[in-house]
Amino acid sequence: MIRHRWPALMTDLYELTMAAGYFENEIRHQATFELFVRHMPPHRSYLIAAGLAQVLSYLSELRFTEQEIDFLRRHPAFQHVSSEFFEYLRRFRFTGDVWALPEGTPFFAPEPVLYIRAPIIEAQVLETYLLSMINFQTSIASKAARVVEAAQGRPVIEFGARRAHSMDSALYGARAAFIGGCVGTSNVEAGAIFGIPIYGTAAHSWTMAFDSEMEAFRAYLRVFPETTILLLDTYDTIAAAEKATQLGPVIRGVRLDSGDVITLSKRVRQILDQAGMTNTKIIVSSDLDEYRITELLAAGAPIDMFGVGTQLSVSYDAPTLGGVYKLVEQVVDGQVQYKMKLSAEKATYPGRKQIWRCLDEDGHYLHDVIGLMDEDPPEEGAVPLLKQYMRNGRICVQYPTLKEIQEAARAHLARLPAPYRKIRGAETYPVKISPNLEALRERVLREL
Amino acid sequence: MIRHRWPALMTDLYELTMAAGYFENEIRHQATFELFVRHMPPHRSYLIAAGLAQVLSYLSELRFTEQEIDFLRRHPAFQHVSSEFFEYLRRFRFTGDVWALPEGTPFFAPEPVLYIRAPIIEAQVLETYLLSMINFQTSIASKAARVVEAAQGRPVIEFGARRAHSMDSALYGARAAFIGGCVGTSNVEAGAIFGIPIYGTAAHSWTMAFDSEMEAFRAYLRVFPETTILLLDTYDTIAAAEKATQLGPVIRGVRLDSGDVITLSKRVRQILDQAGMTNTKIIVSSDLDEYRITELLAAGAPIDMFGVGTQLSVSYDAPTLGGVYKLVEQVVDGQVQYKMKLSAEKATYPGRKQIWRCLDEDGHYLHDVIGLMDEDPPEEGAVPLLKQYMRNGRICVQYPTLKEIQEAARAHLARLPAPYRKIRGAETYPVKISPNLEALRERVLREL
Repeated sequence: MIRHRWPALMTDLYELTMAAGYFENEIRHQATFELFVRHMPPHRSYLIAAGLAQVLSYLSELRFTEQEIDFLRRHPAFQHVSSEFFEYLRRFRFTGDVWALPEGTPFFAPEPVLYIRAPIIEAQVLETYLLSMINFQTSIASKAARVVEAAQGRPVIEFGARRAHSMDSALYGARAAFIGGCVGTSNVEAGAIFGIPIYGTAAHSWTMAFDSEMEAFRAYLRVFPETTILLLDTYDTIAAAEKATQLGPVIRGVRLDSGDVITLSKRVRQILDQAGMTNTKIIVSSDLDEYRITELLAAGAPIDMFGVGTQLSVSYDAPTLGGVYKLVEQVVDGQVQYKMKLSAEKATYPGRKQIWRCLDEDGHYLHDVIGLMDEDPPEEGAVPLLKQYMRNGRICVQYPTLKEIQEAARAHLARLPAPYRKIRGAETYPVKISPNLEALRERVLREL
Repeated sequence: MIRHRWPALMTDLYELTMAAGYFENEIRHQATFELFVRHMPPHRSYLIAAGLAQVLSYLSELRFTEQEIDFLRRHPAFQHVSSEFFEYLRRFRFTGDVWALPEGTPFFAPEPVLYIRAPIIEAQVLETYLLSMINFQTSIASKAARVVEAAQGRPVIEFGARRAHSMDSALYGARAAFIGGCVGTSNVEAGAIFGIPIYGTAAHSWTMAFDSEMEAFRAYLRVFPETTILLLDTYDTIAAAEKATQLGPVIRGVRLDSGDVITLSKRVRQILDQAGMTNTKIIVSSDLDEYRITELLAAGAPIDMFGVGTQLSVSYDAPTLGGVYKLVEQVVDGQVQYKMKLSAEKATYPGRKQIWRCLDEDGHYLHDVIGLMDEDPPEEGAVPLLKQYMRNGRICVQYPTLKEIQEAARAHLARLPAPYRKIRGAETYPVKISPNLEALRERVLREL
């Protein structure tokens, strides 16, 4: 199940053929690549940066094993590649610099999320892993932030491992969902590895395994006297709620997982309250997303907590982020060359950049300006967002804890004005290009 | 990057609390769970079963390490659980039986994909991994089959690692895409682990790293004299095609990745043909899916091969499969109890079943019948689809190779009549419930 993995081969073949190509052509210059999102995905008015921690460990630890090198050497694609290249892979270390948006930062297309500056082979081979990790975690963190926004302060738990794209996806998805504001996850491994609070109730099978629902409820309470949450909808939700009252206020919560949740939650709340179980929470978990949660709350459903799975764990309505990784600058023989792509619909801005976030007097976000990295701030008080995380292949910051990242995201989102955070019909946050960057683009265009 | 993983904790907390609950309540009976898909996902008229190989290795290898047990023992959820339970986990092995659809088999909701029969704790704890692996790989294999169908015999390569939900998702997604009919992947690790053919060209950054496009083309050809595929759209596709002709028929292919691909591919084909490069292939890879490929071919675009990434690797228009895992039968004190759930919209059929595929005289699929496992075939020549894969915790078949699975899927799809395979507006394949199964359901309903 946990196969022997080939970490350095977790990449697209062309990264390694290009590496061989650069090596054999003796191309070793410093290159700067930018990871950015060309357009906002559908249904998203902001994105929450996530996945950097995994990227930094990957860069710190990336090595080619003998077995990996042997696989490449025998592959027909490399048949004309010299043994010096494989010797190079044997000594390979990432020695470059990394700048990035801190995880938890809201950002907007086409802002850069990350820069790599390194000898071009090093900067190239890591592309696939970087994109996969940042695209995925950013998608999930952004979706989670919307779901949490819709829940209006009620806790949201991520429940989606069974619908995630493999258990790696469940693990890193739980992390990203936590960054986006979920209070926890059902995924035990995410608890063990990342310290994320883990939650669970019981499944329908639990109820069905016993001769009667009442027996199933009592059996669970016996083993979990302080944490029992009863699943009510195996047979008849209202009848099950009546049974729950026989067990009393010791029941921490009840879960509804199907049916007309608005009517059912109101009726269940009444039943519980009449039995003096006013502290017993109602948890709902039936095909939820931010739209459905908004409806439920607008209809006055007395729900205390949401369990969100499928829709969150694959970011259903925007299941990927089209982040791309493009060469924007290189230094050859001491000369800086700015680079950009001209392809139809896929043009880029050259050079290494900074994002400046401009604030009003209360600290709310007004607009962003993308400028060149070494430009002056566009206005007084504008905050630069990209920070350096690695220097010469070493992590050069004290990395925040996951809880700190979650707090940072929450604080950021509170400063993003409400019109940009609306679940439907949000306004487009203004992102401007600095005059200097526009001028550089014009100049590079003319010179191409 | 490759963190220390906690395989036995790759699950939802409630699987383990239920396990503790069963243990403490001395519930040890045999239970049979069914994995099935309640409804077809949007835009899908058939599904291709995939992921079973990983499930079988998981079941064979699942163990709880001391470290994992220690994590659980210290977790507040388990504070009232006896030490005997943790002793049980220490000795845990999967000892049950598994029946499943062979990988590569087309199936339809609400058909069962897999049965587990095991002591209830064993059958419960593996739910999350099973669902994740089968839901994911089946989604991707099914999407791939549609893309391959649209390509009308032209090879399709899976290119989507950078958009996959983590590198595990890239790895298993490449496997599933191969089952669904892709000829290969860009993912090197999938080549190393599963022996899937790997393919690659070059990125825009390669072209941009050189002083001129021509220099970039020559440099690549120097290192890869037999396998060079030139990426044409970094600056100007037509100008780049002209440059390719200077290198001659040694160029294996050219890739178009943006712009009006219909017009460009026709023009590029002309340019290549006029230069005598009739064997140089045109590969297209710009935001493709089955709909776009259909359009391109309908417009007569002379494309030889497709590279499909984002849309395939996350199954964009149906990014998850709502497979569920439900208790359908158990044996308590020698008595068989049939189980079903009554929840609104989520009702199930009780008992262990077989799927019978009914064929016409040419072997084409007419319809399926879901009956009880021990029923007679609904008609002469009907083929039973579910097979036993594990007995008493051991794999009891010679598992096919990945290539054999791909072949089986291809052969199956050729026998599924075209109206059920249409990219848009496909007919619904008929799935019937046997009279015996209906009768059992009625009886269980009355008794509940």
